[in-house]
Amino acid sequence: MRTPAVRFRVDFGRHEAVGPGKIALLEHIAASGSLSQAARELKMSYRRAWQLLESLNGSFSERVAVTSKGGRGGGGAALTPLGTELVSQYRAFDRDVQSRAARYFQELAAKSRARSTAGAAPVRRLSER
Amino acid sequence: MRTPAVRFRVDFGRHEAVGPGKIALLEHIAASGSLSQAARELKMSYRRAWQLLESLNGSFSERVAVTSKGGRGGGGAALTPLGTELVSQYRAFDRDVQSRAARYFQELAAKSRARSTAGAAPVRRLSER
Repeated sequence: MRTPAVRFRVDFGRHEAVGPGKIALLEHIAASGSLSQAARELKMSYRRAWQLLESLNGSFSERVAVTSKGGRGGGGAALTPLGTELVSQYRAFDRDVQSRAARYFQELAAKSRARSTAGAAPVRRLSER
Repeated sequence: MRTPAVRFRVDFGRHEAVGPGKIALLEHIAASGSLSQAARELKMSYRRAWQLLESLNGSFSERVAVTSKGGRGGGGAALTPLGTELVSQYRAFDRDVQSRAARYFQELAAKSRARSTAGAAPVRRLSER
């Protein structure tokens, strides 16, 4: 039986949604020390990564990451304490949510077509909303 | 300060995602006893409502709702025990998730631009991912 997975984003306000894409960007910035490197690792354009980071920086009263320009290697990027806190709380919440979903939906998951039981009848699958 | 809200869907498998749209449809079917009435209330086409319901019915080893054809009024629809259980567990999980998000993100929400503090600096808002 497959464990149900929850996909989510947290809305801090009308234009302040934080989901897996932004969190992954922050994690890759923290690990690589570089926005362009983070973008490459996530297979997104530098422009897209920059937009996501600007959106995050505009969502809070303090910045979540700072970037420094130029020099050899094209400048660096690092998370602020607020950015580190955001990633940490998001990931802790994520673990909590997934673990609680496993309990809430255990019986329903057992009746899901996605369970790996041999011989389950094939079923037409329509696109998800 | 605005309480953070979590938007989510539960993936029971690759093609078995259940989110707010499908749950709302089941709730409106339960309340109205009619798929076409549920569709009207949710301002979606009958075809769309039917597709969502078929997708749900195909996601589990039992149906979540049954429909009966014809007669005056155009036939009825009702949730099965599995459908009732799905709605009930989803809503209980939803309440739990929102309440836990409020705790996990309390400090971050206080630093969100969305807080209703007078005099917060205007900020450019980019589209969300």
